[in-house]
Amino acid sequence: MNTTDIRNAITTSDRERFSACALALADIARERLRALCRTGFTVKRKPDGSFVTSADFEVEELLRAQIQRQFPSHGIVGEELPAHLPQAEFQWIFDPVDGTEDFVQRIPTFGTIIALHYRGEPLAGVIDMPLLDMRVHATYGGGAFHNQQRLQLVDLDPAVPPLQTRLMLSARANFVRHRDDGAAFDALTRHYQNHRIYRTCYAHACAATGQADATVDYGNRIWDLAASRLLVEEAGGSYRIILELPTPNGTVFGAVFGRPRVVESVAAIVRDALPVLPR
Amino acid sequence: MNTTDIRNAITTSDRERFSACALALADIARERLRALCRTGFTVKRKPDGSFVTSADFEVEELLRAQIQRQFPSHGIVGEELPAHLPQAEFQWIFDPVDGTEDFVQRIPTFGTIIALHYRGEPLAGVIDMPLLDMRVHATYGGGAFHNQQRLQLVDLDPAVPPLQTRLMLSARANFVRHRDDGAAFDALTRHYQNHRIYRTCYAHACAATGQADATVDYGNRIWDLAASRLLVEEAGGSYRIILELPTPNGTVFGAVFGRPRVVESVAAIVRDALPVLPR
Repeated sequence: MNTTDIRNAITTSDRERFSACALALADIARERLRALCRTGFTVKRKPDGSFVTSADFEVEELLRAQIQRQFPSHGIVGEELPAHLPQAEFQWIFDPVDGTEDFVQRIPTFGTIIALHYRGEPLAGVIDMPLLDMRVHATYGGGAFHNQQRLQLVDLDPAVPPLQTRLMLSARANFVRHRDDGAAFDALTRHYQNHRIYRTCYAHACAATGQADATVDYGNRIWDLAASRLLVEEAGGSYRIILELPTPNGTVFGAVFGRPRVVESVAAIVRDALPVLPR
Repeated sequence: MNTTDIRNAITTSDRERFSACALALADIARERLRALCRTGFTVKRKPDGSFVTSADFEVEELLRAQIQRQFPSHGIVGEELPAHLPQAEFQWIFDPVDGTEDFVQRIPTFGTIIALHYRGEPLAGVIDMPLLDMRVHATYGGGAFHNQQRLQLVDLDPAVPPLQTRLMLSARANFVRHRDDGAAFDALTRHYQNHRIYRTCYAHACAATGQADATVDYGNRIWDLAASRLLVEEAGGSYRIILELPTPNGTVFGAVFGRPRVVESVAAIVRDALPVLPR
């Protein structure tokens, strides 16, 4: 453990308490989303063409109310509603329904992402897929788990060729949404031809479990990535930011995470595919 | 119904009997695959680098034995074992585990594909995802069903832009495996940027249910596509062959299927992306 990491200022018992709270929030989201899949919900398009449903708001409000009750001094960043206490040291960052289009279609890879950050560094994280009964969670210094099973990623054997390496990545839409980085998508899909595209946090969870050798998430916001670094690092993998782009609506991120050799290779491919930009 | 269709020579009650048999075969496969996911199975690489497991052989043998007992005069084409009675008018065509790599990783979108063809035309078809409790099946002239619910696809509203159209497609690996048709993958991913890649029959089932607006399967064999045309046509969608390539190991196919407007558009994009080849 890095002794200079600011997260060591938080006691192990506090970290465990926060992590238990993150899991309890995931339980609330899971129960509500399962019920809504049975009973139905309303669906609208946002101005950017993406879906938003009554479930997104309903679950976000449930989680916000619970956090405010338990941690009145903590900040909250959710996808659908304005930030609460944005200067607080502790920030709960979540996406109540990641993969809303898939949720609308009952494609079961949608999920809930929940993370607690302390001064910008993740302390606890959960990704939960209610219809798959799949949950990955981690606590800083306490390991990562798939359901109840401790995760321990091993690096990819260097003898495994790219065609047998399992890469999960964002759709091309994500690579061209804010700036035309389509060349990165093209280069990745040419080099790692055994790829899968889910467009949800399921791909993030798979990088922590090893079901993917690495996952690339591109052109997304902080709540999409808030849990993934901790999940993968606590599982023994690595995490690299490959895009950090300021936009009028906030910073847009890209990251690759999973087995270290694949993470390094993907980061190099993306860097080589894109023109050098003024910083 | 097309009265000249050779399948009308088969009585409705025979079709229903065959379809019930296809469902019973899917039950056998589902039960065995669920058990094997709990108990484990052996995994090997084939010479082409793809996975094969003891489950592929075990389920194929179970299904073959059942078919031979019930229909001793029918032919059988399975992925892992040699063809049985290849001249018979009735051919059971199946893939016991479609998406073996995902089955190995417990990614739940793998499934079993089962079809009965009569003189080359599909009479009954099933795609079953054991871990998702998802089944799509159809009988010629008798409709298509998702679990117990009758399917009725409507065509895509022409006002829906490509970015809001849901296309599922094969990985780039499939487009370059037998001949370099990577230009078709590139053209499709540029035009339909809201795409998903699963590399399993789950994407086929989603074209019948409407969870995908269309699905492209490329560079695969007859058992991968044996059920999909019937499932989608009986659901009210359309099916177009976009690749038929003889190879030393048998003919390789590509097809697009789903809502008719998207099917036509995808077929045109693929045709325009590839050079005109001598026939």
